[in-house]
Amino acid sequence: MRLRNKPWAREKINAYPQYITPQPEGAKGRWNEIFGNDNPIHIEVGTGKGQFVTGMAKQNPHINYIGIEMYESVIITALDRLIEADLPNLKLLDVDGAELINYFEKGEVSRVYLNFSDPWPKTRHAKRRLTYKTFLSLYESIMPDEGEIHFKTDNQGLFEFSLKSFSEYGMLLNFVSLDLHNSGYEGNVMTEYEEKFSAKGQRIYRSEAKFQPRT
Amino acid sequence: MRLRNKPWAREKINAYPQYITPQPEGAKGRWNEIFGNDNPIHIEVGTGKGQFVTGMAKQNPHINYIGIEMYESVIITALDRLIEADLPNLKLLDVDGAELINYFEKGEVSRVYLNFSDPWPKTRHAKRRLTYKTFLSLYESIMPDEGEIHFKTDNQGLFEFSLKSFSEYGMLLNFVSLDLHNSGYEGNVMTEYEEKFSAKGQRIYRSEAKFQPRT
Repeated sequence: MRLRNKPWAREKINAYPQYITPQPEGAKGRWNEIFGNDNPIHIEVGTGKGQFVTGMAKQNPHINYIGIEMYESVIITALDRLIEADLPNLKLLDVDGAELINYFEKGEVSRVYLNFSDPWPKTRHAKRRLTYKTFLSLYESIMPDEGEIHFKTDNQGLFEFSLKSFSEYGMLLNFVSLDLHNSGYEGNVMTEYEEKFSAKGQRIYRSEAKFQPRT
Repeated sequence: MRLRNKPWAREKINAYPQYITPQPEGAKGRWNEIFGNDNPIHIEVGTGKGQFVTGMAKQNPHINYIGIEMYESVIITALDRLIEADLPNLKLLDVDGAELINYFEKGEVSRVYLNFSDPWPKTRHAKRRLTYKTFLSLYESIMPDEGEIHFKTDNQGLFEFSLKSFSEYGMLLNFVSLDLHNSGYEGNVMTEYEEKFSAKGQRIYRSEAKFQPRT
């Protein structure tokens, strides 16, 4: 997405510490304490304007959600949604997904959502794709055995790459849909992109992949 | 495909023992001797009218191919192709794919091709799909460690099912294309069905999955 410079964004973020956790390094290992319950924690890496994670948090009050977005000018839209919805089971985090290990302990996150991640179509940029093996390893390092990655995209090349990447990493594919919106799948919460692209007749691809215990 | 009764089919099959191996139980463990070389053996389960396996045998003279088709009224069309092409590296077998274990020894077949297999769309028929786990186990029982299954279909539901089935079986996905004919993939040999369906604008899906050594 095209980023507009919004110099006031930082100030606004700082004004809502109850929604966008400040100094998140200090939250590592303490997320259940912060949420005030023992419910499972699901994160979305690249949460954008927050429509998905907000919708999920409304739909599933017994799951804690954290939407992670590194662009200040984008996360403030998610913040506006959260201010309006005032959901106790949703937090936002304005950090880089590549540094998750600084903010979560092993086993602290039970599911990772990746939605319409940047496809980085050039082969030389494959390492930047959020389903590249180094990212899978990162997610594994903050999840329990059998943690799950739920992934949606409209990008065919990224989906093909990701299925192979999950498999090569030794993950188990639990769910594959090659046309989510015509599949009878229920309870789908759409992202902003998903609404736009699917309205144009683009197929939406979706998979669930599960880490396997290391022996 | 609709099957026509062709009472003369049996007679014709019997007339070409050099192409359609008679009493194939006796060939088990002897296929390299029958081909007269030590080249790898690839089989196609459900070879239909034989366009694919004949094309592959022409393209790859140093691989031995066996096309397996249980319907006599269908395999005779493949036989006609083979009579005309007279390829030393291609045999046909008019047996049921569910009984492969009677005709091949462990390790004798290094690749299995499945092309446009019957999708058996009803859930209660899932066990009949040629990528169901019992079939994967059957293919594994005649292949070496790391034997491969190369699979093409135009059926979205069967492809989704098959990717999960390969993964649940512990196989590694080497290759996934969600639109083979627009993917830049080279050397594709089309089946009769593939020509027909892709001409109608249907997407063709393709995967390669590899068995993993049992530890």
